[in-house]
Amino acid sequence: MRIMQKQIKLINRPKGTPTKDDFKMISGPIESASDGEVVVKTVYISVDPYLRGRMNDTKSYIPPFALNEMITSGVIGQVIQSNSSLFDKGDVVLGALPWQEYSVVKENAVRKIDHQMAPASAYLSVLGMTGLTAYFGLLDIGKPKEGETVVVSGAAGAVGSIVGQIAKLKGAHVVGIAGSEEKVKYLIDELRFDAAINYKTQNVAQALREACPNGIDVYFENVGGEISDAIFPLLNNFARIPVCGAISSYNNEQADVGPRVQGYLIKTSSLMQGFTVGNYSARFGEGAKELATWLKEGKLKYEETITEGFDHTIDAFLDLFNGANLGKAIVKVADIE
Amino acid sequence: MRIMQKQIKLINRPKGTPTKDDFKMISGPIESASDGEVVVKTVYISVDPYLRGRMNDTKSYIPPFALNEMITSGVIGQVIQSNSSLFDKGDVVLGALPWQEYSVVKENAVRKIDHQMAPASAYLSVLGMTGLTAYFGLLDIGKPKEGETVVVSGAAGAVGSIVGQIAKLKGAHVVGIAGSEEKVKYLIDELRFDAAINYKTQNVAQALREACPNGIDVYFENVGGEISDAIFPLLNNFARIPVCGAISSYNNEQADVGPRVQGYLIKTSSLMQGFTVGNYSARFGEGAKELATWLKEGKLKYEETITEGFDHTIDAFLDLFNGANLGKAIVKVADIE
Repeated sequence: MRIMQKQIKLINRPKGTPTKDDFKMISGPIESASDGEVVVKTVYISVDPYLRGRMNDTKSYIPPFALNEMITSGVIGQVIQSNSSLFDKGDVVLGALPWQEYSVVKENAVRKIDHQMAPASAYLSVLGMTGLTAYFGLLDIGKPKEGETVVVSGAAGAVGSIVGQIAKLKGAHVVGIAGSEEKVKYLIDELRFDAAINYKTQNVAQALREACPNGIDVYFENVGGEISDAIFPLLNNFARIPVCGAISSYNNEQADVGPRVQGYLIKTSSLMQGFTVGNYSARFGEGAKELATWLKEGKLKYEETITEGFDHTIDAFLDLFNGANLGKAIVKVADIE
Repeated sequence: MRIMQKQIKLINRPKGTPTKDDFKMISGPIESASDGEVVVKTVYISVDPYLRGRMNDTKSYIPPFALNEMITSGVIGQVIQSNSSLFDKGDVVLGALPWQEYSVVKENAVRKIDHQMAPASAYLSVLGMTGLTAYFGLLDIGKPKEGETVVVSGAAGAVGSIVGQIAKLKGAHVVGIAGSEEKVKYLIDELRFDAAINYKTQNVAQALREACPNGIDVYFENVGGEISDAIFPLLNNFARIPVCGAISSYNNEQADVGPRVQGYLIKTSSLMQGFTVGNYSARFGEGAKELATWLKEGKLKYEETITEGFDHTIDAFLDLFNGANLGKAIVKVADIE
């Protein structure tokens, strides 16, 4: 008798904003583990904006998801059976795993995490992919200097909130752009940003002029669209723009059109550099170590928006495009035992 | 009795494309030279697209021209009277000088050039500002590697033609975009580009796909607008875009609108870097030396479109926006004696 579990497959390539109809929750068997494999119970699933891009059948930095196959993303799990000398039952692990309740994987597909040092979910956020994205994008491309002005969009999100805090640690004047009063309050009161702008209720161009009296030296781009259009006229000479995300356009069906940037870049000798965290894989150790140190020293705060239950994974993903999350969006599937 | 000369002043800030009415040819006195000054007879005047930007009253990397004052640009002249120990009568010099037939300048405002080594006008083009722009933009930002594909727009212009030839020297597959059959023929037959596209008669996106079967690694941006819109979908991972000019938009009165670039930059981890040649002033010697070597070795060709007569300076400037020039646009005002 095979033990069955729930799994989530992509059944349509979304047109525009994804809907529940693009996904299907099915029942599938739990495979058995061969030599060198472990059975991992899914504990936390990371839902991320970049997954939207993989749902399109277009060339990008990672291949698209196949239709009628499971979605995969960052997952924290617990080993419940091990046929590997590298893992013991009970080990808590991280890997890129399918959206299902249990995965059987080769021993090199996951790595152990120390959930005594930090809560396991932190390895999906501040100590994981989104923290490293913030770390390398800001420090390697943005290179903020003391006294410079750093603006970050999506500022209350998983990446943006870490970007702003690292920029503060480097002595910058930090301005966040976010989409609710609650988020603005969080950025100012909890994360100690110097200013925060609610793009839904404020005139962003005017608010930026007021919040950035000395112009903008670094703009950490998470959203694209009209919000970033307002940045370019305020760039200082030799400004740097790490281009991390453009969530405002991920669901566009029409071409995403706005003011061309070339003229601004020439006038100010500014740089835009697209990147993905994978570019820095050789330096993950260095980044993770510094992030962990800051976290331990209380210099870095992080928030998680936890959705409970595997059945709500799709909802949690769709909510990303409503700006419903503060900090990292995570689905909690099971407890660590 | 004062000797009078012709001068050209800016009398209106152009709206859109400049017209003759924005300038005025007047008669003004030739000043007399004080100690440490020289009188320079204007020989060649450089007319350049970037001057259009200085006619607007907006913040940029160099201050705008003042209304009712003379335009200044790169000028080659000959010393006809010297009150400086640094210069002798007859010396051929280069400086940023007003558009007039004679200038009286301090000795540190001009520098001697060796017009035995290369024709004097070359110091306004391949050995001067435009050659250095090509050199540093391509090599410092574009960093073409052997076998990579380099696309350059404005390819038959003063900067573009040098960019393409340096890229060939570095072993790249070089594709030029220009605006006439004559220019396309020049790029292929004379400069040995691997392919050239006539944007006025060809579908640029389709022609680029054919000319760049391996995608685009470096795009040297001189024009902006729809031509560069066609580049972004073909960028390879880690592509580099030196953003040097955007002549297509210099005369725009409306906002210059097109597809936003953020998504393309993220997908390919590509870089756009605005620059002006002045950023590299500390390294001009290094660039000028290598350009002169290539020129002497016959590895670098250059063209000039010479307009004869000071009276036609404004025409020569206006022609830049009709794409009338092949190579560097220069006005010849007088002979070297």
